[in-house]
Amino acid sequence: MEKDINLKIFKGNLIFTKTSDKFTIMKDSYIVVIDGKIASVSSNLPDKYKGNPIIDFRNNIIIPGMNDLHAHASQYKNLGIGMDKELLPWLNNYTFPEEAKFLNVDYAKKTYGRLIKDLIKNGTTRVALFATLHKDSTIELFNMLIKSGIGAYVGKVNMDYNCPDYLTENYITSLNDTEEIILKYKDKSNIVKPIITPRFVPSCSNELMDGLGKLSYKYRLPVQSHLSENLDEIAVVKSLHKKSNFYGEVYDKFGLFGNTPTLMAHCIHSSKEEINLIKRNNVTIVHCPTSNFNLGSGMMPVRKYLNLGINVVLGSDISAGHTCSLFKVIAYAIQNSKIKWQESGKKDMFLSTSEAFYMATKKGGSFFGKVGSFEEGYDFDALVINDSNLYPEDYDLTERLERFIYLGDDRNIMKRYVCGNEIFGPKF
Amino acid sequence: MEKDINLKIFKGNLIFTKTSDKFTIMKDSYIVVIDGKIASVSSNLPDKYKGNPIIDFRNNIIIPGMNDLHAHASQYKNLGIGMDKELLPWLNNYTFPEEAKFLNVDYAKKTYGRLIKDLIKNGTTRVALFATLHKDSTIELFNMLIKSGIGAYVGKVNMDYNCPDYLTENYITSLNDTEEIILKYKDKSNIVKPIITPRFVPSCSNELMDGLGKLSYKYRLPVQSHLSENLDEIAVVKSLHKKSNFYGEVYDKFGLFGNTPTLMAHCIHSSKEEINLIKRNNVTIVHCPTSNFNLGSGMMPVRKYLNLGINVVLGSDISAGHTCSLFKVIAYAIQNSKIKWQESGKKDMFLSTSEAFYMATKKGGSFFGKVGSFEEGYDFDALVINDSNLYPEDYDLTERLERFIYLGDDRNIMKRYVCGNEIFGPKF
Repeated sequence: MEKDINLKIFKGNLIFTKTSDKFTIMKDSYIVVIDGKIASVSSNLPDKYKGNPIIDFRNNIIIPGMNDLHAHASQYKNLGIGMDKELLPWLNNYTFPEEAKFLNVDYAKKTYGRLIKDLIKNGTTRVALFATLHKDSTIELFNMLIKSGIGAYVGKVNMDYNCPDYLTENYITSLNDTEEIILKYKDKSNIVKPIITPRFVPSCSNELMDGLGKLSYKYRLPVQSHLSENLDEIAVVKSLHKKSNFYGEVYDKFGLFGNTPTLMAHCIHSSKEEINLIKRNNVTIVHCPTSNFNLGSGMMPVRKYLNLGINVVLGSDISAGHTCSLFKVIAYAIQNSKIKWQESGKKDMFLSTSEAFYMATKKGGSFFGKVGSFEEGYDFDALVINDSNLYPEDYDLTERLERFIYLGDDRNIMKRYVCGNEIFGPKF
Repeated sequence: MEKDINLKIFKGNLIFTKTSDKFTIMKDSYIVVIDGKIASVSSNLPDKYKGNPIIDFRNNIIIPGMNDLHAHASQYKNLGIGMDKELLPWLNNYTFPEEAKFLNVDYAKKTYGRLIKDLIKNGTTRVALFATLHKDSTIELFNMLIKSGIGAYVGKVNMDYNCPDYLTENYITSLNDTEEIILKYKDKSNIVKPIITPRFVPSCSNELMDGLGKLSYKYRLPVQSHLSENLDEIAVVKSLHKKSNFYGEVYDKFGLFGNTPTLMAHCIHSSKEEINLIKRNNVTIVHCPTSNFNLGSGMMPVRKYLNLGINVVLGSDISAGHTCSLFKVIAYAIQNSKIKWQESGKKDMFLSTSEAFYMATKKGGSFFGKVGSFEEGYDFDALVINDSNLYPEDYDLTERLERFIYLGDDRNIMKRYVCGNEIFGPKF
């Protein structure tokens, strides 16, 4: 019998996606976690672990935690308001004035505290966040996330060009501040890490993008930004970078397009050449359907990308997206794909529930390491779903999960774990 | 001073839509209700009502109740499952087998009880429901709704053709059962009433539709059905009614298309001629965006219909729609319109929040009488919204309502009224 102070055994109905084509369903089964990592997943508890206490969730469902690969922490205050603009006016009227307030660290602390609480409440266990250009507030966000227990990539936003005076920076300061944050946080936490974050091409000078590409290479840091969300945005990029053949080529020119793992949000209106480069450079597309609907950006052709073998993950894109809940984003991703299916004359098959779930768990989690599935060696990031108010007795396990995704909410999430540790709502 | 046992005075922040173009917002204002009807709406309480007790909701928001103009009561069990089919296979695989169970009145009672509880929980105060073809279960639904306190049109479903053997009826029985229900319930309740309900053209013989048209005329009853939801469905109608120029013309031929107030759900793929007839006959279109997404039916061109002056209201269409919450349907309707806006090259303007709210309140309510607004003579159907968990102190009243619509849920609905009576979840 193996006894270990860092050994935990969980029992319940396990549902996860090893591959995107189907759910793996293990009724009344066991997950053994040692030092936060999964040591065993089985229907019967292996002999060597017997005798240890078992945390038995009985008829409840255990699933991997949600991985949100695109969200703007500093826009949390705007969640659910002002949804009457498309991208560029939205930025100028709602986003930029709000982000300017993050010069004040106390203000940042209040907003970031609310956001982190909401993320945890809704079952997000890992998240890729945009902060603002402000160094001190971004540092505060790092500290708060480390304290919260969830995993994150955090980007100090870089923007020195084409932005309102009250929210712009000199590219040298921008790069210095970014490097200072990198040095402070690259080794501080195992699960909260810096990520290179040019806001998007229209607000970054060539010098800034060049410097960011070099920082990314120097510290082997991933990159996140926006790509081909909106037709007007694409026109702006074209007017600013006349020699580039397409939007993504600008990032690529500066080493920000797949030299290190790269997240590009949206990609709704990507040209054929851009899609080829995404594929060739192994760039990950972050699909943000709630945002795309709310801003009227358009509908991302998810099946086309999957057929090409392109990585597609999910993002809440708050606050253009109106909910932190990745479960709701899963539902919207499926719905988005159903309209594309209908509009393609049923050529582009819509997403199955397991495919969309896979994007939010194993595929999204892969950006953070071995995260998002219940397999040996994976971090134990998990949610325990109590669906007792949804009449579980009348449904099989797949249906119960589907009903939770479509009908449930945070009240159904009874436990949250990251790396084997239980996470509670932080008190800020 | 007017004293009356049936007088109630409510105070709070009132938000409603007299017209669709803007919210009427009355901070800290009064609604006087006499015998369930609104007698006065004002910022200061008129002298003649002073001295009566005031139900003061303080900083909370009072809005009209939600009117859901299309929902299938008998499909409630299927909510949130099996969302991998389009309309016709969905009917054959999920809907028809489930509806067949309603031969058993005890089964019906269980399902209808869950549904009514969920409707009330989510703030629906009036609803137009499809039951099943079974007389006894439909009678049970009438009784349960009357007991619940919410308002409803209830349709025994008529279907005698092209349906599975286990779920079909003889047209004579169908008409007799329908008339029996009409006679039993046409005068029993002021707010729960029968409605003529041919399932849809493909499942009704000419004899049945002819008889239903006559019943509708004889008792001056409204009509509800489905229209042009799906391209395959339209092809079936075309093959069955070769002499009709378009789907809606079949209903019209049998007096089921605007002779009395008529609800037609979906109308996504209506032809120009069909739209003209909808307009000419003053037929009301029920827009069900959640359903249209989930079944991949398509996106209804809402602005086109509004520009033509056609009546458009909202429906949950459970269980092809995945939620009873009309607030979520409002959000989806706006999102649907934003994609149509984008796809029309910004020609077809998307819905404003007040326009979508108006559809769910005053426009939808008009089908039930003077319902859905806070104006003199209107029934007092209302919800009290407590948004204290959504940081109300940081937002103005319109923003608070918008945030409740996008981010809130049943936890925020602290009170529900229909015709001045407080409604509680029923105990069945």
